[in-house]
Amino acid sequence: MMRTFVLLARKARTDSSFNLDDLPSSGGRMDVVARCISSALFISHAMRKDVCFYAVLCGPPNSPVTVKIISSELQGVRPDERSIGGQLKLALASVSKEWKQVQPGMYVAAKSFQEIIRELKDRSIYVLHEKGEQLQDVELEANPVFVVGDQVGLASNDEAFVMRYAKKRLSLGSTPYLASSVISTLHWVADRKGL
Amino acid sequence: MMRTFVLLARKARTDSSFNLDDLPSSGGRMDVVARCISSALFISHAMRKDVCFYAVLCGPPNSPVTVKIISSELQGVRPDERSIGGQLKLALASVSKEWKQVQPGMYVAAKSFQEIIRELKDRSIYVLHEKGEQLQDVELEANPVFVVGDQVGLASNDEAFVMRYAKKRLSLGSTPYLASSVISTLHWVADRKGL
Repeated sequence: MMRTFVLLARKARTDSSFNLDDLPSSGGRMDVVARCISSALFISHAMRKDVCFYAVLCGPPNSPVTVKIISSELQGVRPDERSIGGQLKLALASVSKEWKQVQPGMYVAAKSFQEIIRELKDRSIYVLHEKGEQLQDVELEANPVFVVGDQVGLASNDEAFVMRYAKKRLSLGSTPYLASSVISTLHWVADRKGL
Repeated sequence: MMRTFVLLARKARTDSSFNLDDLPSSGGRMDVVARCISSALFISHAMRKDVCFYAVLCGPPNSPVTVKIISSELQGVRPDERSIGGQLKLALASVSKEWKQVQPGMYVAAKSFQEIIRELKDRSIYVLHEKGEQLQDVELEANPVFVVGDQVGLASNDEAFVMRYAKKRLSLGSTPYLASSVISTLHWVADRKGL
């Protein structure tokens, strides 16, 4: 079983020059990325064993860069934003074209959103979208991939691309939730469905 | 309409001497408190207008201290942990016995969990508990008060006290979720029910 999240962070910094004391501004809302990772990976006192998280970072100066986290391999990461921000900073200090492990469970590559979607195209992909079907009414398939936009949302060409492969668009309703809250809710609903 | 959360943070520091660079250790898991406030107050690009949040802090050296936040009055707070941690630090620098406003929308007092519950006793109180009724099966009443434990959980005497006034215990299932994820899920379910 694997539950996968792809977060598209359109403004997030793509080198390690951001300041851990100011993740929102210097990091291009790297606080959002960190909170999403925390929501995706952690339960109380423990880490989920079945999560893969892709943070696709598209801000300056080296866009795109994707950080991939595999929860079952990860060690020594805490759920607070600063700790996760520090791990992202380390990852962003050594980006190459292909996947490179920067620590157990954390990988980085200069890959775009569309390249990540292509890697996942045989899985059951669900795109979070305000005009999608209501989450509570959808029969999710096993091993889902959830594509979540940040506070900016998906670009129209990326949305068109992912919809070639996606099963459905999912909506949590008319409230525009924080991406981290979307992830928490998706986990709860998927847990209820036993996925 | 008002949605109220009471977070019991059993280890959270009760003076302003904690370090914003280390909310988890020096703050007694003040990162958890900050994430819960973020999850409770914020939606994307905006703050909810109908939330009241109580953080009951019970760590050293001056336990108990409660910080109360009224979202409709609040200004200038961002959703990142460090920003919220900074606001909590300011609040904790000037605690007196009765409620005192430390900035618009933020109040602090040397009040205990049981005193807060007594202030809220005429509202519909729901206590999050692993042995409670399943959230998705419960007809929540309007203007709910949700009582959420932190990573440590409620002390048995506090639990006995709140259950004198509570409507029900609610469970999100067998997974022990982060308190901030619990709050995100409660908001989503309450939004669906139009509360």
